[in-house]
Amino acid sequence: MSTDTRRKHRIVVIGSGFGGLFGTQALRRRDDVEITLVARTAHHLFQPLLYQVATGILSEGEIAPSTREILAKQKNARVILGEVTEVDLEARTVTSQLLGTDTVTEYDSLLVAAGSGQSYFGNDDFATYAPGMKSIDDALELRGRIFGAFELAELARTEAEARRALTFVVVGAGPTGVEMAGQIAELARRTLKHDFRRIDPTQAHVILVDGADTVLPAFGERLGGAARERLQELGVDVRTSTMTVGVDETGVELRGPDGHTTRVEALTKMWAAGVQASPLGAQLAEQSGAGTDRAGRVKVRPDLTLPGHPEVFVVGDMISLDDLPGVAQVAIQGARYAAKEIGRRLDGEEPQGPFEYFDKGSMATVSRFSAVASVGRLRFHGFVAWLLWLGVHLVYIIGFKNRITTLLHWAVSFLGRGRAERAATQQQVFARRALDEVGRRITDEAGEKVRDAS
Amino acid sequence: MSTDTRRKHRIVVIGSGFGGLFGTQALRRRDDVEITLVARTAHHLFQPLLYQVATGILSEGEIAPSTREILAKQKNARVILGEVTEVDLEARTVTSQLLGTDTVTEYDSLLVAAGSGQSYFGNDDFATYAPGMKSIDDALELRGRIFGAFELAELARTEAEARRALTFVVVGAGPTGVEMAGQIAELARRTLKHDFRRIDPTQAHVILVDGADTVLPAFGERLGGAARERLQELGVDVRTSTMTVGVDETGVELRGPDGHTTRVEALTKMWAAGVQASPLGAQLAEQSGAGTDRAGRVKVRPDLTLPGHPEVFVVGDMISLDDLPGVAQVAIQGARYAAKEIGRRLDGEEPQGPFEYFDKGSMATVSRFSAVASVGRLRFHGFVAWLLWLGVHLVYIIGFKNRITTLLHWAVSFLGRGRAERAATQQQVFARRALDEVGRRITDEAGEKVRDAS
Repeated sequence: MSTDTRRKHRIVVIGSGFGGLFGTQALRRRDDVEITLVARTAHHLFQPLLYQVATGILSEGEIAPSTREILAKQKNARVILGEVTEVDLEARTVTSQLLGTDTVTEYDSLLVAAGSGQSYFGNDDFATYAPGMKSIDDALELRGRIFGAFELAELARTEAEARRALTFVVVGAGPTGVEMAGQIAELARRTLKHDFRRIDPTQAHVILVDGADTVLPAFGERLGGAARERLQELGVDVRTSTMTVGVDETGVELRGPDGHTTRVEALTKMWAAGVQASPLGAQLAEQSGAGTDRAGRVKVRPDLTLPGHPEVFVVGDMISLDDLPGVAQVAIQGARYAAKEIGRRLDGEEPQGPFEYFDKGSMATVSRFSAVASVGRLRFHGFVAWLLWLGVHLVYIIGFKNRITTLLHWAVSFLGRGRAERAATQQQVFARRALDEVGRRITDEAGEKVRDAS
Repeated sequence: MSTDTRRKHRIVVIGSGFGGLFGTQALRRRDDVEITLVARTAHHLFQPLLYQVATGILSEGEIAPSTREILAKQKNARVILGEVTEVDLEARTVTSQLLGTDTVTEYDSLLVAAGSGQSYFGNDDFATYAPGMKSIDDALELRGRIFGAFELAELARTEAEARRALTFVVVGAGPTGVEMAGQIAELARRTLKHDFRRIDPTQAHVILVDGADTVLPAFGERLGGAARERLQELGVDVRTSTMTVGVDETGVELRGPDGHTTRVEALTKMWAAGVQASPLGAQLAEQSGAGTDRAGRVKVRPDLTLPGHPEVFVVGDMISLDDLPGVAQVAIQGARYAAKEIGRRLDGEEPQGPFEYFDKGSMATVSRFSAVASVGRLRFHGFVAWLLWLGVHLVYIIGFKNRITTLLHWAVSFLGRGRAERAATQQQVFARRALDEVGRRITDEAGEKVRDAS
């Protein structure tokens, strides 16, 4: 301790997702660094299971452990809560804001892992009616809307109203969209089967829409076909080569492969179609001259640094490099690469050479007991892929206790038919602007007196 | 089936709390009735454990199972979601509203179990700054505020700011207040001990305030004294004979036993001091001429019915009868009494005579391994009382799966020191009006440039 009185190397990490967290942890053994992790949420988010929070299987705590708690024993790291509003590459400072108060943190090395948000391809007004699936807020909002839709259907006064309440549109047939569509279908057909008296929840209409001509395009034709078949067995109405051209309070406008636009009345819509890199990306690109691609991702150098700024690494969903996919492994491997590079520099070693992504494979669940997985040249689907999915996700869920409760909740949902986490806040039920407007419209339109059917 | 072609007896139950749910279940074997349970939440709330959601031990799903799911197999019952806006005793109808749409339900018998809300004794402006502990919304809001306060303290720029952020005021030393104060103290001293770098969470100042001269007055002097001692061991600053005369964004005004008013700077306040019966009580009292007490509770007849309306039963927190306490058992027993009475009438039997409450005892936890319990003439405190508490609460938690996950979360919290459910929504972190205003004020006041301490 007394042998080293030099100032420690200050590292700021932006983001508590896979990149930020794994990057910080990769530096845990270095006592010559001082890490400040700045994030806008106090939790790490295990995003691959977010759809299970949205559909009542897991609690938010199970996939969102406290970042501070995860890092409690890593003495060289501290965590501060705040939204990063500015990175000044010249001054080497990061400004973050919490409840109106700015905090400025200086760095010697910077690791930016701020991730991405939903992209509505320029139609930002869609967001009100079709929330994305990027945060705990999104998942809880969707959970309230999905379970709430069945409640509204039970109270509907006309067939058309009930049908509208029981129609769910999922835009985007990537893993998240496929998982959501599959889960809503199972919810309707299994979980809620006996819960209602007037409506038949199994009649819910789940529509999965994508502009591409296949489901799960990244998984190739064979697995995409298998996923589509399984979804159709579950009753999901899969509409590929179909563009979502309008989203409003009460429905969507879809333009099919024949060029015709049809309107679908649907109370509940969700958006899993596109991503847009954190706006920090554009800020970094502008200051460094790096440039961005259409999704706002920064064109980094092969070693993940900004041009002219070897001290700034950008990883994960925010970068445009070699067509890397927006998956957890890209963020984790990138962050570990950056952490290692920072360590080598401090040790006076040579650079490791350009970042190389090792594709460990990818997988998506379609329904219980059924998934698709692509590992190297191998392609699995069905039960074997599902077991693989189960194992991998259990390993990556952080914390022993979360593994146990998650396993239990999975047993409840997959072996039984319950959903343990269905509670909605009143705020969600009564203050939802979009649905509220629908309610008012329904009231205004319906001039007749309500007659109870009993 | 074909032997009985008469119209079934229509029962409307208002509320999905202990009264509404147990009353409905007590009628499960009668195939000559048709029950409609109307509630403003889709879940039953196990309110005695709400404080554990507010302090990160349990998930909301564990204490808020879906009412619809609980009653799925009870074929004579249906559930509708909505806030009851009007009961018309003459027309025998209940009007409920969901998202602007009214639903009118006719009844032959009515069981009103709408419970109570927080009372601020005429100071309704306190509510913004000191949320109550009555709903999932309250608990999640408080959870966000409590964990958020430590985050704000870590970013504080002055000693005074940090101290204010680390001061927690709990108003009301009944079971809920005692449990909250004890849990926040344990949170600060055990759970968060190693989580921060600048502040020392164990220095948090938890103040428990009550106008009465003892803690847990309903439990008698001996148990109240034991609870106070245990709280003081935990570091809780117990201030009895102290009135809370002001609550604002940044603190409270307390008038002590000496008549002096002092100001305490505290960002986080919560209110567990008084209850006010659901406004439905006043409506029923006015229509029937029953009268209400100061807390808005209906003065029912000894058989829990409204004067002149033997078909309308009111139970639980909403009634003023024989000084019954506002506990779950009063609601459960009252609802079962009413259900039995309805059944006897349908069977042409004599009335059972006036409602008699059987006091099974009461208990409150002070901290892990320590509780107070009063059963008949017996008084327990410490570990034995805590075991009793554990057993009773496990029995009353609904659903096997909830019991298992709850036990696990308890093991995590009581044997370890973790809190599995700490996640806050961004809405809670960034849109909290009260804290936001504090933030702005802090920014305005602090003219100096932020200097990072690193």
